[in-house]
Amino acid sequence: MALIVQKYGGSSLADAAKIRDVARRIASAEERGDKVVVVTSAMGETTDGLISLAYQVSDRPDERELDSLLSTGEIVSSTLLAMALKSLGYEAISLSGAQAGIRTDTAHSRARIRGVVPDRVIKELEAGKIVIVAGFQGLTEEKDIATLGRGGSDITAVALAAGLGAERCEIYTDVDGIYTADPHLVPEARKLDQIGYEEMMELACYGARVMHPRAVELSELYGIPILVASSFSEKPGTLVHGGIAMEVRNKVRGIAQDLNVAKVTILGVPDRPGIATTIFEPLARANVNVDTIVQNASVERITDLTFTVAKSDLDKAIAVVEPVVEAIGARGCVSDANLGKMSIVGAGMQSTPGYASRMFRVLYDQGINIELITTSEIRITCIIDEARVGDAVRALHHAFDLGKGN
Amino acid sequence: MALIVQKYGGSSLADAAKIRDVARRIASAEERGDKVVVVTSAMGETTDGLISLAYQVSDRPDERELDSLLSTGEIVSSTLLAMALKSLGYEAISLSGAQAGIRTDTAHSRARIRGVVPDRVIKELEAGKIVIVAGFQGLTEEKDIATLGRGGSDITAVALAAGLGAERCEIYTDVDGIYTADPHLVPEARKLDQIGYEEMMELACYGARVMHPRAVELSELYGIPILVASSFSEKPGTLVHGGIAMEVRNKVRGIAQDLNVAKVTILGVPDRPGIATTIFEPLARANVNVDTIVQNASVERITDLTFTVAKSDLDKAIAVVEPVVEAIGARGCVSDANLGKMSIVGAGMQSTPGYASRMFRVLYDQGINIELITTSEIRITCIIDEARVGDAVRALHHAFDLGKGN
Repeated sequence: MALIVQKYGGSSLADAAKIRDVARRIASAEERGDKVVVVTSAMGETTDGLISLAYQVSDRPDERELDSLLSTGEIVSSTLLAMALKSLGYEAISLSGAQAGIRTDTAHSRARIRGVVPDRVIKELEAGKIVIVAGFQGLTEEKDIATLGRGGSDITAVALAAGLGAERCEIYTDVDGIYTADPHLVPEARKLDQIGYEEMMELACYGARVMHPRAVELSELYGIPILVASSFSEKPGTLVHGGIAMEVRNKVRGIAQDLNVAKVTILGVPDRPGIATTIFEPLARANVNVDTIVQNASVERITDLTFTVAKSDLDKAIAVVEPVVEAIGARGCVSDANLGKMSIVGAGMQSTPGYASRMFRVLYDQGINIELITTSEIRITCIIDEARVGDAVRALHHAFDLGKGN
Repeated sequence: MALIVQKYGGSSLADAAKIRDVARRIASAEERGDKVVVVTSAMGETTDGLISLAYQVSDRPDERELDSLLSTGEIVSSTLLAMALKSLGYEAISLSGAQAGIRTDTAHSRARIRGVVPDRVIKELEAGKIVIVAGFQGLTEEKDIATLGRGGSDITAVALAAGLGAERCEIYTDVDGIYTADPHLVPEARKLDQIGYEEMMELACYGARVMHPRAVELSELYGIPILVASSFSEKPGTLVHGGIAMEVRNKVRGIAQDLNVAKVTILGVPDRPGIATTIFEPLARANVNVDTIVQNASVERITDLTFTVAKSDLDKAIAVVEPVVEAIGARGCVSDANLGKMSIVGAGMQSTPGYASRMFRVLYDQGINIELITTSEIRITCIIDEARVGDAVRALHHAFDLGKGN
């Protein structure tokens, strides 16, 4: 009898009929003899609706209040799922993040889990109940609700799996696994049976929205295998784990893309110690998440500095940067909101040269200009015109033979 | 500097614009120098929407789960109101019932407040904040959410006022006070400037929906004056308190009506000790709230027994009663779902004879048949055909001169 944590995404719980379907899936896991803890996201577009309400009453909703507000979405879905299970004849109970012992820091809207104290979860499991936990939320030391940020229910699920010593964490969503590329862009994209943690991490960070990167990180840390699968089918899904054989790893495994990229370039920055701090500390304080940073080689102690942010943060970033530009005596600042990025990911790349040059050649052959390049040991990312991202992903998928084999 | 508890009903918080209006009202109380604690109901029809969702996933939603689900409605309105106040430049914080220290028993869906431990509320008040408390809910000893039943936010408000030693509790709703009768039925109905606790209690119990009877009871117990007023106007409202002068009390003060009445009569009940228990215990277990009970004089140890329930409970009541009828050897059971009741209320009635006979005469003159009669010391209630309730209330309002004076 294994203990399994299952997480269901918002699209899987979008209405009463889907909630009843999910209840039946959970019931069949229970019938197989597994003990099941379930983590829920909010139903469908609930979170967006609540955020919209908040902005109708306030231009800048207080983050503590916003967290309490948003946490209700997952409470609604968890209680409804528990009711649906009970009406199928199963003992079930819903717990809020606080009741389930999810303890967080006080960084409202982007809190990190400090620990899991799952006494109540264990008590209810021992009483024979299926435990449904509201994802995305936890309790701070001040007994306030804090949320974990977008996709935070994945993190709740993995943290609970770790805290309970679960055998496996299953992430159910509206796609049936991890693909070599977005099937909407690349028709011949292929579902992977398995993928390593690091590769999954890079794909998740660089645009594959199926799983939250911090959840992948946490599952690697605690060695918890994750099954990513569809709640709408019985297809087997993709297993994310640490035991991938060497020969499977030695190639490009997948391509991620992200159209939500804007670029800011500060021109004529005096190149002196501390200048980066002067620029990026105000951005961090304004809660602007800076992604890629590139600083050109300095000519006569003057350099250009480029960074990327989410498109939705561009206005805020410019408002923060403009006074800084003046204060440090830079020449000015320009921006471009029409960018996208795509990344090739594969653990094999770290020991094999030539991937970068092949990638650049493919883009060159497509007539695509590369704006920025960043790399990790197992990933190469190019930022390009957003209108060309689809062409680039299709060409790379073909060039690296991702449509074939495993 | 007085401490005031204000409660805003669902219609006062129905959308973002109304929430901003309420925030401005609270701000102006704060500007007058009062310290304000606010209790919120759920926005508009939120609670009904959540109940409907629950019944879409389950024929009989679990009560513990339903309580957790419904509690989110008041959390949403309290957080939005706190955001709105902050955006007006006031320090404000929302607290759930649990955070505000509302402790209840475990009778889910109809919990009673066992105590208020308002440490957090006091701490936030001392920090200069306006405290917004989600009404209708509290925390059980098992750390589960329990709700106080329909209109429970009134009870939260009075309990907090008592626990904090507030000077006054203000109930803001969509009517501007307590009227001598429902103005929709009786155009000449008059708003009362003040009313005693007992009279308010009887009016609230017998159909005036403005305030929850248990909230009136609690405010009398702790001697907290209650102002009932509209959140949509600056009219003065009605003060419910204990210091009403004798001469004001010595008359009928108001008429309440309630169209939600169904009647069940069990025919040919053997009149022996314990028979009432046999009938009413199963109803209580099925959570059917029995209102009036009338047992006719027994003829040859056989009697008829009539009771009333809410119309929505009639089917459940009959399902419970039918096997009992058979078990106790009664002759059968008949029901009538088309009834209403109306009550005349006035503290003066307890020492002055003749009110009942005047009431019956008025109904007789209108050709209205009385199905059942019940009385308290300060109230006389008649149950009649629901189609005639409007006529009856208008005629009684006129006969008892309620349109005149105070």
